[in-house]
Amino acid sequence: MVEVAIVMGSDSDMEVMSKAASVLDDLGIEYEMNIISAHREPDVFFEWVSGLEEKGVKVIIAGAGMAAHLPGMSAAVFPLPVIGIPLKGGALSGKDALYSIVQMPPGIPVATMAIDGAKNAGIMAAKILAVGNPELLEKLKEFSKKQKEEVMAKDSRLKETGYKDYLSKK
Amino acid sequence: MVEVAIVMGSDSDMEVMSKAASVLDDLGIEYEMNIISAHREPDVFFEWVSGLEEKGVKVIIAGAGMAAHLPGMSAAVFPLPVIGIPLKGGALSGKDALYSIVQMPPGIPVATMAIDGAKNAGIMAAKILAVGNPELLEKLKEFSKKQKEEVMAKDSRLKETGYKDYLSKK
Amino acid sequence: MVEVAIVMGSDSDMEVMSKAASVLDDLGIEYEMNIISAHREPDVFFEWVSGLEEKGVKVIIAGAGMAAHLPGMSAAVFPLPVIGIPLKGGALSGKDALYSIVQMPPGIPVATMAIDGAKNAGIMAAKILAVGNPELLEKLKEFSKKQKEEVMAKDSRLKETGYKDYLSKK
Amino acid sequence: MVEVAIVMGSDSDMEVMSKAASVLDDLGIEYEMNIISAHREPDVFFEWVSGLEEKGVKVIIAGAGMAAHLPGMSAAVFPLPVIGIPLKGGALSGKDALYSIVQMPPGIPVATMAIDGAKNAGIMAAKILAVGNPELLEKLKEFSKKQKEEVMAKDSRLKETGYKDYLSKK
Amino acid sequence: MVEVAIVMGSDSDMEVMSKAASVLDDLGIEYEMNIISAHREPDVFFEWVSGLEEKGVKVIIAGAGMAAHLPGMSAAVFPLPVIGIPLKGGALSGKDALYSIVQMPPGIPVATMAIDGAKNAGIMAAKILAVGNPELLEKLKEFSKKQKEEVMAKDSRLKETGYKDYLSKK
Amino acid sequence: MVEVAIVMGSDSDMEVMSKAASVLDDLGIEYEMNIISAHREPDVFFEWVSGLEEKGVKVIIAGAGMAAHLPGMSAAVFPLPVIGIPLKGGALSGKDALYSIVQMPPGIPVATMAIDGAKNAGIMAAKILAVGNPELLEKLKEFSKKQKEEVMAKDSRLKETGYKDYLSKK
Amino acid sequence: MVEVAIVMGSDSDMEVMSKAASVLDDLGIEYEMNIISAHREPDVFFEWVSGLEEKGVKVIIAGAGMAAHLPGMSAAVFPLPVIGIPLKGGALSGKDALYSIVQMPPGIPVATMAIDGAKNAGIMAAKILAVGNPELLEKLKEFSKKQKEEVMAKDSRLKETGYKDYLSKK
Amino acid sequence: MVEVAIVMGSDSDMEVMSKAASVLDDLGIEYEMNIISAHREPDVFFEWVSGLEEKGVKVIIAGAGMAAHLPGMSAAVFPLPVIGIPLKGGALSGKDALYSIVQMPPGIPVATMAIDGAKNAGIMAAKILAVGNPELLEKLKEFSKKQKEEVMAKDSRLKETGYKDYLSKK
Repeated sequence: MVEVAIVMGSDSDMEVMSKAASVLDDLGIEYEMNIISAHREPDVFFEWVSGLEEKGVKVIIAGAGMAAHLPGMSAAVFPLPVIGIPLKGGALSGKDALYSIVQMPPGIPVATMAIDGAKNAGIMAAKILAVGNPELLEKLKEFSKKQKEEVMAKDSRLKETGYKDYLSKK
Repeated sequence: MVEVAIVMGSDSDMEVMSKAASVLDDLGIEYEMNIISAHREPDVFFEWVSGLEEKGVKVIIAGAGMAAHLPGMSAAVFPLPVIGIPLKGGALSGKDALYSIVQMPPGIPVATMAIDGAKNAGIMAAKILAVGNPELLEKLKEFSKKQKEEVMAKDSRLKETGYKDYLSKK
Repeated sequence: MVEVAIVMGSDSDMEVMSKAASVLDDLGIEYEMNIISAHREPDVFFEWVSGLEEKGVKVIIAGAGMAAHLPGMSAAVFPLPVIGIPLKGGALSGKDALYSIVQMPPGIPVATMAIDGAKNAGIMAAKILAVGNPELLEKLKEFSKKQKEEVMAKDSRLKETGYKDYLSKK
Repeated sequence: MVEVAIVMGSDSDMEVMSKAASVLDDLGIEYEMNIISAHREPDVFFEWVSGLEEKGVKVIIAGAGMAAHLPGMSAAVFPLPVIGIPLKGGALSGKDALYSIVQMPPGIPVATMAIDGAKNAGIMAAKILAVGNPELLEKLKEFSKKQKEEVMAKDSRLKETGYKDYLSKK
Repeated sequence: MVEVAIVMGSDSDMEVMSKAASVLDDLGIEYEMNIISAHREPDVFFEWVSGLEEKGVKVIIAGAGMAAHLPGMSAAVFPLPVIGIPLKGGALSGKDALYSIVQMPPGIPVATMAIDGAKNAGIMAAKILAVGNPELLEKLKEFSKKQKEEVMAKDSRLKETGYKDYLSKK
Repeated sequence: MVEVAIVMGSDSDMEVMSKAASVLDDLGIEYEMNIISAHREPDVFFEWVSGLEEKGVKVIIAGAGMAAHLPGMSAAVFPLPVIGIPLKGGALSGKDALYSIVQMPPGIPVATMAIDGAKNAGIMAAKILAVGNPELLEKLKEFSKKQKEEVMAKDSRLKETGYKDYLSKK
Repeated sequence: MVEVAIVMGSDSDMEVMSKAASVLDDLGIEYEMNIISAHREPDVFFEWVSGLEEKGVKVIIAGAGMAAHLPGMSAAVFPLPVIGIPLKGGALSGKDALYSIVQMPPGIPVATMAIDGAKNAGIMAAKILAVGNPELLEKLKEFSKKQKEEVMAKDSRLKETGYKDYLSKK
Repeated sequence: MVEVAIVMGSDSDMEVMSKAASVLDDLGIEYEMNIISAHREPDVFFEWVSGLEEKGVKVIIAGAGMAAHLPGMSAAVFPLPVIGIPLKGGALSGKDALYSIVQMPPGIPVATMAIDGAKNAGIMAAKILAVGNPELLEKLKEFSKKQKEEVMAKDSRLKETGYKDYLSKK
């Protein structure tokens, strides 16, 4: 069953947003992925977001750039967690999107990630689902372990070769 | 007939927003004033904003602070001009609201005013209506003339008294 | 009859500013386009801007970068709406131009667009003219409908092919 | 059973952080509240955060100001969701804390709230728990309904009295 | 003969701007002081600024807040040096005025001072006049010497009393 | 023997700078405290800073606001560590001083503290001296231990009384 | 006789700084150009800057990036006008240099130009010298006239060809 | 004996961090270089950082980007000086890392360098060690002398060739 809905306002956001999908793929979490613009098709957006709870969706991941309204408007309708990803495009390098997503007023929270932090959005969605899913929690711990081992392997290689050799072979 | 709709998301914004109303009062423009939150009551908001064109409203003036979505979401639905006012409240002094309002994506413009610039929002609404209303245009010119005369009077007083006396009597 | 005057201070701004012209072309709105610098030829500028009302111009679209004075000085003279576009050039990526345009003092509003938001300036000019022009309003609704359909088509394609295929064919 | 752990690094943060606790009180969610500094007592911090999973804690709410490391370091150890609240104190008004919390590197997400957004942190924690708790979800919907009714009541009052009367009685 | 023209757009700027006048008073430099708004009375402004050279004015000191156009527009007309002072008022604490004044395009420089740096504007005007006035240069050196002696006197007092005593007697 | 030289450009900085002195007092480190302005008395400054090494000074603590040059110019002359403290005064809340101190070019480092972080400057000076002074290192560990115990005591009190009681008795 | 001294701290700044020299060349103003670092050779710097007045130098143009101290330290010694140019290099795009130059404390002004505004520094130096040099003033007016004619020529070309043709031939 | 420990959280930071190592190499200071992530392997990090004092390490150099916790968490454990380098990567160009490192709370200082200022971190480490090592101090003075001579040589070349020739041969 689809547990996560990923949404972006434009297909120019897909390169970044696909990193969230990729994490969910790796962890075996079912999701739907949508291009829906709260600005260009507010009626389509509202119908879609209003139907998510009934479809069984537990978490929304919404990414948007500039005056980013998609995460906040999702949170205005959807009663369960919404994760927001500020996207970098535009003259202000995503600072506009960050402020538009994180500075939500009392009552309507959006769980905001780093600018272009789509991978972390996927992980946060998994953590939320893992609260009631011990098997998924195990997978997340495995994921963290692998992260740790990767850093340790790099450190070992540095210790063996020294930084000059390390850099020259990058 | 009501030609302008003023909207804010919370009554804590009314002090500032009333300056827009006051300009419209002075210029004899009919308006309605509303407290409607796109975040806290999206269904009420959408029904309201969707009905404005039929009611004869020509311009929306929307003020919001922090992650300010009200102007942009109004522009997503209403086909005529939307004027946005970033409000100053919160830790970022209105910079968050400014970015959330002005950085709208291509296709959905919001005519953005200065932070807390509600008086200018009222004047801009009047200018828009004056495009097809020569009488209103005359009133606006009168308004500008008065502005000019006020500055000239202050300059004259300064020339007469000197700055020390001017400051001491402020 | 020319209803909109587009103005920029330098021909290096034309690439961006042409997007405003292009929207007006599409909607059948007549306009004039000018390169006039308020800084380098203030006398030419003042003569030009003072004559616009009599020529029948209803809206000015002014774009400028850095210490952007062109929109604000236009608004100081022209009694009808002025739309300002902050341009991105320079070390501060257009934030300087944004502040120089949007932070106008009470009495002299400029309807400010996003940084490099020339397309939206064209649309906003059309919306202002549409207040008294039902035919133009219909065209704008058509324009919005097309925008919506484009997003829906992309969403359908994504649903059919999945994001990996979608991205690989971009 | 305690499901949420609230943590702050100093008792000067308690005024703001208590708003998170207050939401949890209202929704009947059990929590523990702690003053533990990752900077001043890293060993105490690590022992505490490492024991939370076993105690049954499902969500951490961590608030911090300035170079805010508490939320990120909690997320480095705790495998379930961590919610971060940037606190406003200091010369940079919380922008430093916002960046220190939201800009987490890939692999270690923190669900970031607005500056001083402790109330929203409480709500987000409840939403996360509500994913597996239909009764709590009902309470959250009730909470949203009340929020909506409050705005509607204010709007009604404004419609009845007008803004001048409204403002004078605030 | 009047050698310096001080100008501000509003009498709310006079408190700060009077510090420039005060320096000129101390150094025996004649000046005129004006309240003239480039935004509210562009015609008055242009007539005034165009006549300054003939009156014998050598330097303009212009202060402005928010979207500060007064210094830049003065520099567009006046062929000799213009000194600009960004004023602090408004939600952005003078950063908007700073950018609007300092980021002038090639060809039209404004000698920009610190935010609210009116005293320094007076000194800079004096330095400019001192290029061709050895007597004034001597007065400026005297002024610097006094500045130096004041700091040295404070240091001596600190050395004598220690910081605790020094602070308690401030 | 004097091992640390504290310097500030104005006695208005003394309130903050005295926190550095107070830490040194507590740890039994001898220091001198000076009011010397690199801007107002560059000759005095250069003579003073050039003589410090010979006097046996090991570390300089320099605090400055706005365009803060005192720490960087000290580092240009003094061959041992210079600690810089950006001070908060002025329209930009110390961000100007932070950039003026921390962004030193390659070759001339300044060890920069938080805005108004004078207490930390004192501690950092002590840490530098403790590199070759085991007794001082013990004192610093004692200091850290006390810091830790204070936080633990507050946590215990919170656990005993609950946050409502804690807040009411603050 | 050399009337202007141009100084930069590193030869990496020369590309930008040469624009100031080029303006002075065009206007027939004699200058010297120096690479002197206030940070890397404070003694050389102080000796040089202390000797400028006697050499007959009337204006210093100093450019610097990052924690830019060169203009401010020049102004601390040289009694006549110092023009500062914040240079763009580094992670903060010249905002650090801007703040380090413009935010000078009371008593020590630096006439600050735009980021990378070396051309304007040359013009400002000429304007300062033109206060006492009617011939140079004429040259500056000629320069402004040429600036104006260039813009007018571009506008004419645009009027003749239209923007599409204009852009295609750029 | 190893006196300095260099640490970074990811091998993508090595290019910049190697500049610190290179300075230490030049000055004959022994160091260890590590890739250890406080976020991805907090247990490894804590074990490592807790063992440094016993190994004889006197100074830590820690570089990190985005929400940079590595320097601050090192300072929470290590009792001697920690030098922090904010790294530039990511949408905010290192401003996030700068704030996350420099804005440490009272009690836990980090000696912060410029963004990407790894060379200066190496020099600062050497200066700290030079407090108790006259031979190293001599080397540092030699290093400063060479820096000075390089600038002087460039200035001489400029004086000989003029800026046009200088630029053309760069």
